[in-house]
Amino acid sequence: MANPLIDDRTLDFLLYDVLDTEALVRFPRFEMHNKESFTLALRTVAKLARESLFPTLRKMDQEPPVLKDGRVHTHPDLPRVVGQMVEQGYVAMARPIEVGGMQMPLTIASAIGAYLDAGNVGAACYVGLSGGAAHLIESFGSDELKKTYMQPMYEGRWTGTMALTEPHAGSSLADVRTKATPTGKGDYLVQGEKVFISGGDNSFSENIVHLTLARIDGAPAGTKGVSLFVIPKRRVEGGKLVDNDCKPSGLFHKMGWKGLPSIALKFGEDNACHGYLVGKANEGLRCMFQMMNGARLNVGMAAAANASVAYHEALAYAQNRPQGRAMTNRDASTPQVPIIEHMDVRRMLLAQKAIVEGCLALLLTCARYSDVADASPDEEARAKAQKLLDLLTPIAKSFPAEKGFEANALAVQVHGGYGYTAEYLPELLLREQKLNTLHEGTTGIQSLDLLGRKIFGDMGLSIGLLGEEMRQDIAQAEKLPRTKKHAGALGEALDGWTVLLATLGTRAQSGDVDGALATSVWHLELASTIVVAWLWLRMAHIAAKKPSSPFYEGKLRAADYWFETELPRAAELCRRVEMPTPAYRSMPIDAF
Amino acid sequence: MANPLIDDRTLDFLLYDVLDTEALVRFPRFEMHNKESFTLALRTVAKLARESLFPTLRKMDQEPPVLKDGRVHTHPDLPRVVGQMVEQGYVAMARPIEVGGMQMPLTIASAIGAYLDAGNVGAACYVGLSGGAAHLIESFGSDELKKTYMQPMYEGRWTGTMALTEPHAGSSLADVRTKATPTGKGDYLVQGEKVFISGGDNSFSENIVHLTLARIDGAPAGTKGVSLFVIPKRRVEGGKLVDNDCKPSGLFHKMGWKGLPSIALKFGEDNACHGYLVGKANEGLRCMFQMMNGARLNVGMAAAANASVAYHEALAYAQNRPQGRAMTNRDASTPQVPIIEHMDVRRMLLAQKAIVEGCLALLLTCARYSDVADASPDEEARAKAQKLLDLLTPIAKSFPAEKGFEANALAVQVHGGYGYTAEYLPELLLREQKLNTLHEGTTGIQSLDLLGRKIFGDMGLSIGLLGEEMRQDIAQAEKLPRTKKHAGALGEALDGWTVLLATLGTRAQSGDVDGALATSVWHLELASTIVVAWLWLRMAHIAAKKPSSPFYEGKLRAADYWFETELPRAAELCRRVEMPTPAYRSMPIDAF
Repeated sequence: MANPLIDDRTLDFLLYDVLDTEALVRFPRFEMHNKESFTLALRTVAKLARESLFPTLRKMDQEPPVLKDGRVHTHPDLPRVVGQMVEQGYVAMARPIEVGGMQMPLTIASAIGAYLDAGNVGAACYVGLSGGAAHLIESFGSDELKKTYMQPMYEGRWTGTMALTEPHAGSSLADVRTKATPTGKGDYLVQGEKVFISGGDNSFSENIVHLTLARIDGAPAGTKGVSLFVIPKRRVEGGKLVDNDCKPSGLFHKMGWKGLPSIALKFGEDNACHGYLVGKANEGLRCMFQMMNGARLNVGMAAAANASVAYHEALAYAQNRPQGRAMTNRDASTPQVPIIEHMDVRRMLLAQKAIVEGCLALLLTCARYSDVADASPDEEARAKAQKLLDLLTPIAKSFPAEKGFEANALAVQVHGGYGYTAEYLPELLLREQKLNTLHEGTTGIQSLDLLGRKIFGDMGLSIGLLGEEMRQDIAQAEKLPRTKKHAGALGEALDGWTVLLATLGTRAQSGDVDGALATSVWHLELASTIVVAWLWLRMAHIAAKKPSSPFYEGKLRAADYWFETELPRAAELCRRVEMPTPAYRSMPIDAF
Repeated sequence: MANPLIDDRTLDFLLYDVLDTEALVRFPRFEMHNKESFTLALRTVAKLARESLFPTLRKMDQEPPVLKDGRVHTHPDLPRVVGQMVEQGYVAMARPIEVGGMQMPLTIASAIGAYLDAGNVGAACYVGLSGGAAHLIESFGSDELKKTYMQPMYEGRWTGTMALTEPHAGSSLADVRTKATPTGKGDYLVQGEKVFISGGDNSFSENIVHLTLARIDGAPAGTKGVSLFVIPKRRVEGGKLVDNDCKPSGLFHKMGWKGLPSIALKFGEDNACHGYLVGKANEGLRCMFQMMNGARLNVGMAAAANASVAYHEALAYAQNRPQGRAMTNRDASTPQVPIIEHMDVRRMLLAQKAIVEGCLALLLTCARYSDVADASPDEEARAKAQKLLDLLTPIAKSFPAEKGFEANALAVQVHGGYGYTAEYLPELLLREQKLNTLHEGTTGIQSLDLLGRKIFGDMGLSIGLLGEEMRQDIAQAEKLPRTKKHAGALGEALDGWTVLLATLGTRAQSGDVDGALATSVWHLELASTIVVAWLWLRMAHIAAKKPSSPFYEGKLRAADYWFETELPRAAELCRRVEMPTPAYRSMPIDAF
């Protein structure tokens, strides 16, 4: 049986039973949609992902891009598959009709993204990056920029990138040096070098538009002096496309994502690179956060989708590979059994299932908050949803990446020695997955965002709202015998987390900021484990009320797994996070 | 600064301060050695590994072997580097002088292996496999086989392999089908197919000798009908080497270890493949376990060595890469700081250090038990050491592989986006590491070996001995203020483990074997965490008594890390292992 990539029925369960996505069509913005149009869109993308994208994954992995004669040569299948995605309108799916979009709720757009990422994330990213880059122009750009650059991007004729990182400034955007000098004619001449520009060049799109952070001459140091620019590979001049002095200067050789080149890019080597300011001067980082936040959710979804593909590979292999016999059967003349009958293989499969579906639930929950925040007519609901979305974003970015990597390693392990070979997919998926803990803000950066900015920086307001959401579900789940125990366990974990945050908050306020943040990555792990437990509780509660079937039994078992294996780590994690002076804190550098 | 691969001083600390390796020269077998000869051998291998092997690692990764015209074409650097290892006598290092060996303690041979593995494990394996295969002939073969096959292997002219796995029989050796038909002239005609034969063909050695499991016609089903054979690629006939009908039939495309081809091999396609019985008929598996146990320790060491290289890469990067500023410094005009000053980078480095050095200590401890078991004049000491070695082998095989993979992922993470690229080494090391949880018995197999065979199968005798060893060190460490708390924590964990084992034992005896073994992988994790905590306690106790210095402070901090981060997981792991019916146990297959 072919790999489903994402299980359709699980997705429907999440969208309609768990998240009541249908209710979104009551918002004016989404009123042209209905469940049927959602379902049609989902079945269409599933078919495209399975039949068109997925078969290119191994091929692109084996023929990585090449930088030759100043051009990046990408895989020959890309024009076809990117073309198909463009044709389906995926670049501007969630954007308004007026700009050529489909005005689709992000919840559905995210689910569509899950299939595309699962099929071939490297190829799908051209679409996601182009949409995100164009959206920046839509939100902050002039009408001229919208007409000239945004429109061809939304139409999928041109692709887009985000150009933030520089060789000496990866996580530290305060140190961006690329400089923009006003020409006096409204535009700027840009000089600088960017690295890790995904899709920074390719051999199929008519033009590439880089949404770039740079510093206008005389701007203040740090993040307060960073501005956002449109820097096209070819600029429009007199109705024609002319070369804009952006040269690929290097190509990174990545472990995976080989459909999507990651390159170094030089702007203005011949002092002929024109940039166009987007939004106000020195407000670039604030603007860019729109794209970064979207990209963070996309990374989380890519991670969950990747782990889903690996899980389905492992499941099929375990069902079909005969090896060994029951522990108590020593008769070698009896046939071997499929390895899914072995206890540890079952453990590895259920762990993967719990991670994959828990992470899908997390990402779709975030997308739904985003829809409410953007489109609800109820102002209070909008504000609350925005708070919850902001709080959950670092979790949704990093947890699927970290935990998905664990799941992917298990998928390799289920395949035994074969898992280490290119004859099976899990090794490729494992390599692809590793990127997700790194790009769009490492796990360490996300952990500081969560604890420093989203919790302390907000005086605990958002976390209070999240607690309320959880308590409501706990109260519901407590009423059902099948979920009562889990509800109690989640309540306890939430109490523990609350106490911990009070301790850390006091520590930060007393001036020991380093001490309050010293264990932020463990805090992120704790928070994520609890949040996913909450989502599993919701899923279990709904599944328990359905007529018994293997499908719902699967949801209940995966929830049981989370509550007997992952959530019980919370108490010990709390203790660990609470340590003010972990061994590494003041360790002399020469003692490492 | 160049990567040291393995830190010399840490190795000396382990060998001489922790393990008193010098005492081994009091055994008659090792009396020709002394600390100076050990040190000379270690400095020699360090130089060879750093200057000759390590520079070939990336090259071999980028030019994998090719199967063409029925031959496997291996990397052109192999003859040189394998030749250098042969010249240093590494094939038969630990074997007796009489057979051309150096009669070196395995403790030193293992340390030498650590450098070689760290340099380039794929290349080093030719030497390790040849030695292990020849050792089987030495232990169980006829004088004729020793003269004809073992001798050229020990001399490094011929290489050797172990040929166990078949397409339908990976972990389940009971299902080996390769058949051996007596010719009536003392040898056998062999037919069958083996897969995953590491070094199964190469383009540099004069001959390749496969130590092969096969079934003599009419042998009983299962493991009791499996015999061990020498099957050379070219057999000696009339003083000449003639083709022996062993054909490479496929090449696996692996994630790493690309210096060492893993191939499928067909024996007797033309019915002209001669095999020579080693040991008694139907006792092949018992014989093969000698090589498998050795190979398991080698895998553990390879895993530890790999993680060590990755740690040193990460440490150097962290010391030299400026990025960002202190949490409390918002002034972007001040210089960026090296990332080792960031709290989470420090955490990732110390975690790696604690894993790497804990695993090195584990492997060297096993090697030392092996030396006592083989060479002590004291019979009781020999028996006890053998028990402890047998008990610790599954831990020493699997924990460095599983935990090393975690460490390697952290090394990638420390490098940020660069870690995902071939411009830095950690991505290669991560790919290499993944094999170690799979070959020579997966982690699942090791966990069953530990709990089923080494603990239940032994009526708890070995685990009792291990407990005594630990209690002695706990008693010592309790006397020192710096280690008192850790000693208490280890004692508690040991108590918890003991109670758990009683519960599981009772469960097994009452007939619920599946229930007793259902969580065996978690038990392996628990056991490993406690064993490594014990070794860190020993190291800390010794370091605490030394004059204060960055080196010893590093040992103490790494021990602190283990005791504040890893060991506290024991209680929760105990609870989890104890579950008789985890969610996956009886889950219907269609609910996955």
